[in-house]
Amino acid sequence: MSSQELSCLAEKARKASQEISRLSGKEKNALLERMADLLIENAAGIENENRKDVEQAEKKGQTPALIDRLVLNKSRIEGMAQALRDVAMLPDPVGEISQFRTRPNGLRVGRMSIPLGVILIIYEARPNVTSDAAGLCLKAGNAVILRGGSEAFHSNRQIVKILHKALEEAGLPEEIISFVPTTDRKSIVELLKMNEQIDLVIPRGGEGLIRFVDENSRIPVIKHYKGVCHLYVDKAADPDVAMELLVNGKTSRPGVCNALETLLIHNDIAGTFLKCVEKEKRLKEVVIRGCSETCKILSSAEPASEEDYYSEYLGLKIAVKIVHSVNEAIDHIEKYGSNHTEVIATRDIGTAKRFIRDIDSSVVMVNASSRFSDGGELGLGAEIGISTTKLHAYGPMGVESLTTKKFIVMGEGQVRG
Amino acid sequence: MSSQELSCLAEKARKASQEISRLSGKEKNALLERMADLLIENAAGIENENRKDVEQAEKKGQTPALIDRLVLNKSRIEGMAQALRDVAMLPDPVGEISQFRTRPNGLRVGRMSIPLGVILIIYEARPNVTSDAAGLCLKAGNAVILRGGSEAFHSNRQIVKILHKALEEAGLPEEIISFVPTTDRKSIVELLKMNEQIDLVIPRGGEGLIRFVDENSRIPVIKHYKGVCHLYVDKAADPDVAMELLVNGKTSRPGVCNALETLLIHNDIAGTFLKCVEKEKRLKEVVIRGCSETCKILSSAEPASEEDYYSEYLGLKIAVKIVHSVNEAIDHIEKYGSNHTEVIATRDIGTAKRFIRDIDSSVVMVNASSRFSDGGELGLGAEIGISTTKLHAYGPMGVESLTTKKFIVMGEGQVRG
Repeated sequence: MSSQELSCLAEKARKASQEISRLSGKEKNALLERMADLLIENAAGIENENRKDVEQAEKKGQTPALIDRLVLNKSRIEGMAQALRDVAMLPDPVGEISQFRTRPNGLRVGRMSIPLGVILIIYEARPNVTSDAAGLCLKAGNAVILRGGSEAFHSNRQIVKILHKALEEAGLPEEIISFVPTTDRKSIVELLKMNEQIDLVIPRGGEGLIRFVDENSRIPVIKHYKGVCHLYVDKAADPDVAMELLVNGKTSRPGVCNALETLLIHNDIAGTFLKCVEKEKRLKEVVIRGCSETCKILSSAEPASEEDYYSEYLGLKIAVKIVHSVNEAIDHIEKYGSNHTEVIATRDIGTAKRFIRDIDSSVVMVNASSRFSDGGELGLGAEIGISTTKLHAYGPMGVESLTTKKFIVMGEGQVRG
Repeated sequence: MSSQELSCLAEKARKASQEISRLSGKEKNALLERMADLLIENAAGIENENRKDVEQAEKKGQTPALIDRLVLNKSRIEGMAQALRDVAMLPDPVGEISQFRTRPNGLRVGRMSIPLGVILIIYEARPNVTSDAAGLCLKAGNAVILRGGSEAFHSNRQIVKILHKALEEAGLPEEIISFVPTTDRKSIVELLKMNEQIDLVIPRGGEGLIRFVDENSRIPVIKHYKGVCHLYVDKAADPDVAMELLVNGKTSRPGVCNALETLLIHNDIAGTFLKCVEKEKRLKEVVIRGCSETCKILSSAEPASEEDYYSEYLGLKIAVKIVHSVNEAIDHIEKYGSNHTEVIATRDIGTAKRFIRDIDSSVVMVNASSRFSDGGELGLGAEIGISTTKLHAYGPMGVESLTTKKFIVMGEGQVRG
């Protein structure tokens, strides 16, 4: 696509964003329900197109993990449809009025939630992101520009075609959901210049893609690079609770960003706790990279390098460090952490409060598994992404993150003296 | 300053941000009060340094308006001190817990407001911005890096020196308020690369400075370029109210961003209303650039070009257009507006609601003067800037805009299945 064609696409998306922004909650929900129905009705067509992507990936010798992420079958398409219905069930994030107050001069001032406008989603292999992201953007009254990866090109294009049918039936412009039909990086760079047309970019994928987007964008980007999540086992921890948090955090799904990567243990209980770790069957396959004190206690531990404490292993490996106070744990997290999710296991309410107050990561937990750090689990209904930078949104982002608030002011002719 | 020195300055500011973030509301307020006292006690020293800036400006043949913005006398220094005391009186924006809910699995999930971290303020002539911005950043628990313009260099440096005294007395690092001692643009460009150390940039000044910052920044920027504020006089307007809004919006302080720049009038009342405009003494000096219909009614009007409707005159000039519906007014604002502030004068509640719903500017008003579009007037206590882009903050920004929210989660050992 030429740079002129891309700019035309973005301009049309901006125009379309006005139409979607003015729909009522009921109208938007009807659209989402219709889209879900159409995905189910047209599942065979999606599977056909998906087969092309899968064959191409196989030909290229892609990993089984990537191919698994790519595959769409009937049950996955039903899952996509259900996700749209779930989004329809959420309260309308737009039009809510809050903080209404009357000023001394009688002016009534409040804030009203409104859509952001046009959102560009840049993503990689998973084709379900196409309908998930479109549904969330639409729910919040935004137009969306979808730019998926080349691996899922045929699947993505077909899904968008089906979503367009629902827009068309409702007499709405299909540019509410725009699809970028090229998958080269040059087109990304072009789009990222269009800060007049596009309000927000959300990249979803590997760290390389995200850094590329961030470095090239003139539009605000909401992102997270990695999740180096910590569990700090305090001296006042319930050891059974701490063990369950460790097992669940490290082993239930080691390849995701809310899995644990580092274990910090208070010196006073390090000996007994690490002995339990050694005996714990569910941790048998986990490789431990420990500090020198850890290695003295656990003969099976490998010595950790400085690099280990910055690492997001995304596998059955964990860095371990013995600390001598909650302060040392906090300082370690401040230095090595990624602002994603940190957990303390403790029965001491003062220490818990201290940890909560002083850790500035996007999610701070007491006696709960880091694996709950997810929009759905935290009660946001659905998740469009996660932010580990503090502007606009911080932590898992629900549909509310796709809105902003304007001031509304009601007077009876007041003027300023 | 070399790029290495600047990076060292930013790194120290980041470290200092941890110390300020952990202070209680009471401690921060005591600091602000002490800073106010010290400004008063050291007023003579500030005036001495200020004289250097003023003399330099006079030598350079600067405009009287710029020199007026530059001058600090006893009463202006008292004003700066009072502004710090006013900020101390505001509620602590940090540590507030909201949206606390219990999930079905017993997890209690809430949001806690926290500081952003390090904020870079880039500003031009007014030296009072030095203490105003430092006070607001400090109140929200942030470290601040101040980079003022060359015009006010001596004044700014002296004010910072005094603020440092209060930090020193409290045993806090002076890097909580960092001062960039060079005023070349190269140093700005260097600072704008430091997205690891700095969380937010707020440029305050002319459009040229703001565009320069925005184009060179790898850090999120909150900004507004201009205020092309509209008054739409609906056919159901109270003509007396509409006239007061026009007079106040255009003439009370034409050089500021919340002054009116464009008047839209419904066709049904355009004839009578424009005749009143012509007779209104308080509008005598206002030049009218009108559409062809306006020019037919008002012989004194000059014909408006397309460019006029995009213009922020910042003077006694106004663009006028006759429209045939509220929709046409909304479309005009959508096309020519700057997302700052728009006003409707109407007695029709349906039309008012429509205007409020469909205008996506940061401030939308019914029967009130655009001149109220200001943090203080809207009840924010004090204003750190204004945003006409939708990410993070939209409209006048109070101290709350200098914070974000992290998730806090309290469990009793829950793990994810």
